[in-house]
Amino acid sequence: MNKIVLAQIDTIAGNINHNSQKIIDCIIKAKQNNADLIIFPELALMGYPFGDIFIRHKSIITKQLQALEYITSLSDGITALVGFAEPTWDANKKPFYNSVAVAQNGKIINIARKRLLPNYSEFNDYRYFEPADKSCEIFEINGEKYGILVCEDSFNDKSFFKGNSIYNIDPVAELMKQKPDTLINCSCSPSRCAKEYLKNSLFSTIAKKYSVNYIYVNQAGYADNLCFDGSSRIYDKNGNITLRAKTFEEDFVITSDNTGKINPLPTGMDKKINLNNFNTDYSTDLDRTYKSILFGIKEYFCKNGFTKAVLGLSGGLDSSICALLLADALGKENVWGISMPSRITSCQSKDDAKILADNLGINFLEIPLAETIDPLKSVLNSAFDKIKTDKYSKSTTIENLQARLRATILWSISNEHKQMLPIATSDKSEAYIGYATVNGDMSGGFAPIADVTKTKLFALGHFLNKIRPQKDVIPQSILEKPPGAELKINPKTGKTVCAEEENMPYEFLDEIIWFVENKGFGFDDLFNHKFLYEKKHALSDEEKTEWINKFFRKSQFAVYKWHILPPSVVVDIHSINSVEYRQPIISCIN
Amino acid sequence: MNKIVLAQIDTIAGNINHNSQKIIDCIIKAKQNNADLIIFPELALMGYPFGDIFIRHKSIITKQLQALEYITSLSDGITALVGFAEPTWDANKKPFYNSVAVAQNGKIINIARKRLLPNYSEFNDYRYFEPADKSCEIFEINGEKYGILVCEDSFNDKSFFKGNSIYNIDPVAELMKQKPDTLINCSCSPSRCAKEYLKNSLFSTIAKKYSVNYIYVNQAGYADNLCFDGSSRIYDKNGNITLRAKTFEEDFVITSDNTGKINPLPTGMDKKINLNNFNTDYSTDLDRTYKSILFGIKEYFCKNGFTKAVLGLSGGLDSSICALLLADALGKENVWGISMPSRITSCQSKDDAKILADNLGINFLEIPLAETIDPLKSVLNSAFDKIKTDKYSKSTTIENLQARLRATILWSISNEHKQMLPIATSDKSEAYIGYATVNGDMSGGFAPIADVTKTKLFALGHFLNKIRPQKDVIPQSILEKPPGAELKINPKTGKTVCAEEENMPYEFLDEIIWFVENKGFGFDDLFNHKFLYEKKHALSDEEKTEWINKFFRKSQFAVYKWHILPPSVVVDIHSINSVEYRQPIISCIN
Repeated sequence: MNKIVLAQIDTIAGNINHNSQKIIDCIIKAKQNNADLIIFPELALMGYPFGDIFIRHKSIITKQLQALEYITSLSDGITALVGFAEPTWDANKKPFYNSVAVAQNGKIINIARKRLLPNYSEFNDYRYFEPADKSCEIFEINGEKYGILVCEDSFNDKSFFKGNSIYNIDPVAELMKQKPDTLINCSCSPSRCAKEYLKNSLFSTIAKKYSVNYIYVNQAGYADNLCFDGSSRIYDKNGNITLRAKTFEEDFVITSDNTGKINPLPTGMDKKINLNNFNTDYSTDLDRTYKSILFGIKEYFCKNGFTKAVLGLSGGLDSSICALLLADALGKENVWGISMPSRITSCQSKDDAKILADNLGINFLEIPLAETIDPLKSVLNSAFDKIKTDKYSKSTTIENLQARLRATILWSISNEHKQMLPIATSDKSEAYIGYATVNGDMSGGFAPIADVTKTKLFALGHFLNKIRPQKDVIPQSILEKPPGAELKINPKTGKTVCAEEENMPYEFLDEIIWFVENKGFGFDDLFNHKFLYEKKHALSDEEKTEWINKFFRKSQFAVYKWHILPPSVVVDIHSINSVEYRQPIISCIN
Repeated sequence: MNKIVLAQIDTIAGNINHNSQKIIDCIIKAKQNNADLIIFPELALMGYPFGDIFIRHKSIITKQLQALEYITSLSDGITALVGFAEPTWDANKKPFYNSVAVAQNGKIINIARKRLLPNYSEFNDYRYFEPADKSCEIFEINGEKYGILVCEDSFNDKSFFKGNSIYNIDPVAELMKQKPDTLINCSCSPSRCAKEYLKNSLFSTIAKKYSVNYIYVNQAGYADNLCFDGSSRIYDKNGNITLRAKTFEEDFVITSDNTGKINPLPTGMDKKINLNNFNTDYSTDLDRTYKSILFGIKEYFCKNGFTKAVLGLSGGLDSSICALLLADALGKENVWGISMPSRITSCQSKDDAKILADNLGINFLEIPLAETIDPLKSVLNSAFDKIKTDKYSKSTTIENLQARLRATILWSISNEHKQMLPIATSDKSEAYIGYATVNGDMSGGFAPIADVTKTKLFALGHFLNKIRPQKDVIPQSILEKPPGAELKINPKTGKTVCAEEENMPYEFLDEIIWFVENKGFGFDDLFNHKFLYEKKHALSDEEKTEWINKFFRKSQFAVYKWHILPPSVVVDIHSINSVEYRQPIISCIN
């Protein structure tokens, strides 16, 4: 048996020095451990995703090829599989192949080129890569035969996908004609809800079907809103996992030392999730969601040179969960929670914000908004009167002004202090319908929960409380109160208006979002569908119609806001993140 | 000779009712005029670009096919060429063909499918479309034979592009084997600097080379930062234009009535532009730039339901040009210029802002910043002291605060008044290096000049003054003063710091941008290049090195800001607009 290293590294797009140094260090360590073969993820040398940078920064291409030459020179006594962007040097072709170089004894003995180029969702392979028209020849080490697949190449098993595959060829079937003992899949595969179950079933099926060993090496890292979970692993010929690297962390695992060591996945991550219907039981995805966001925060901050975060604490669910995630990712001493109560902020909210900060041990400061907002209001009111054009009879101006002043304070604090980033606390349900203020709560250097819907956030809150030794870190009152921005008073009740009064129940909204994202439902489909909410509450056809129409109207208008959302972490099955989903601002959806 | 209508319509992506009504109206009018053939642009029925909307809003597809059926039923006595997204209904293929239906006497007698699918720059055809593997059969009307090309299909003439074509096949050459009398090109082709010269040369070359009539029908419209200029036209067999529709405007032209009528292009638009070297003579592109932005503003406002704009007037170049463009696009009575002087705003700037507003006849209001900024500053200063973490010794906090308060005032004004949008006045040079404040001057509902560099803006200013009857609408002092944000005082001079002191001369910066965007220059290429600036001024190697490094450092850091730029209008040869250029925030370019 050959000794094999799964080098699950973290890369930075275009940073050839950084990436090649990691690769070199791993190869040296692998040689010290007498490994026969070391495998890196897809595009390890260039970093992924690299977008269009090579078009305007051509020197990256030369640097990459020089680095590959040097790395190849280190391959004496070892075989190294190094993913790189291989120039086609052909004006009639796309600029690159998405390739894996097989470096052995100082030479590149073979190159495997990706055949299936995904060009949907967050993938844009066909923008940059030329597809290979045949599978790479297998190669040998000590009599063992290996065949290479690049990520998507493994995702077209006809029987597994039952005719729902989008490509005509199956590179696995073609590669297997050469009878390799082991298939190696070099990947950059982002983590999403329900993805691990799919991958594991598929890889296991392939190993069993062809009675072949299957090695999967995935990048561990974050870029451009996507978290790559790592979780590299080996399947034996029966489709059983014999080794698994860590999740959401770089790793370096060697078969002989580690075979049999199967690092645990986040709780429930490998479980099947019902993709046919919406439900609010998020239990199998909460730990992964939590760890995915933690990893995203750590990576984004570190790679951009930030160490500290400042956020507004309203005493509500969104900012509380953001504070907890930031404290866990950056260290509680690096998080500043700022309470900025206005005259209509309730005592309960103020208290909850303080209790939460104390429970988390983060820094806390109260900056009352009243004394800064009043002078601005009076200047504005006099200006409003001078502008002779239609005014709204009921306007959201003062509500938005509060949110914008709060964000201005946070940005000012981050401006004044080193390596500090202000945080946008918008969640997915609210972003979807634009229930967030531009330059206000949706503004920041990072938006941790922008892909988590409200009903899932409540579940996440309970989950996060449960996994900590400390009781009720997020106070029960925060988990129980109806969400609301506390920006205005309902004159009838004298209380602040809660969000569900203004919009619709979150459970109903989240179910609409689910069916639009996963099933492409339009008005009629939604109207004819029986919502979970309807099983618990009476709902007239009029109200149902109103809510569904409100969703389409508001989400149409919110597209502008989606376009300017701060960087975030994709965690859901689908998202509105522009890395994945592109809706022109000028477009009509209903 | 057949009577042919070039129906240069404006569409909205996904708005099937809107698009089909336009198509129907044009067909009825064409029939009233006894036309034999009516030609619509590429994807006229679906609207272009439509992005991913059909994935989550599937009903659009059904609606589109129903509309096509109805439109077809109207084709008695006329032939109509209607661009649409034709479902492939095949899980192994992309969702659509990019097709043109030939409707004749109530039936679809033929479908032309696009063969060359651009997937670079602003084009993402391969994300959505399956390429056709052969050319469409030609069709006849009264003995005349017509062949159809869809946009890019016409862009691969081997001799014209001299080996720099990115596709192997040339659909024109293949289609010509069927010996049509006339080629018809249905397009959605965005306007850019230097593009008209290329198109005209290419189309004329094809007509002459094959001795064929050539009809080009292009969309006139705006979506997702792109302006489609229309300018549909007919070439005779000698490659001469015999008819041209309007530019940046919808049009309906009939050959027999209009042949010989060649609507003028914006001044200089058809001239050759030197693409081999940077120069500051922008004269051949100023009128097109102006009209392109006007059209973009009109379209964006109208299609999103806005009629009025509010912007800050600093007395500087950027805001002055924005004000003029808005006044011309929306009507002077619909523009509100707000002067928001701080304590360090010079009298000259205040006066210039007022004079400009008076010259343009727009509404003007002064809101002094001092009384609103002081309370905020004192609250912030006390907060800064309580935050026990590293402070910057020199910080930009107060500078940014001024910009953010100004934006907050503009957003509040727009919030309070109906159909009013706040304007971001950032220009391209400053956006490139991030010399613009998040939630400040780079924030707004629309950014008219985000793709115009500073040296071009000066030229545009002079041009705009020259074409108006009124003398010096933009006061000479605005066109002459060195640009600067007037956010801080240089303690040595006691004067406000100008932008070139903080960054580098704009002429030098714009030349860097030009070579990075057009030639992919890196540090070494730039250092070895002789800049225009150097021909006029002494420049030491140290300073040159510092400026080039500063460019890379600042533009790397600015990528986050590029991701959250408001909607704008692409006008330059290349741009940083995310519709065209995608650089991950986590990436390294040097």
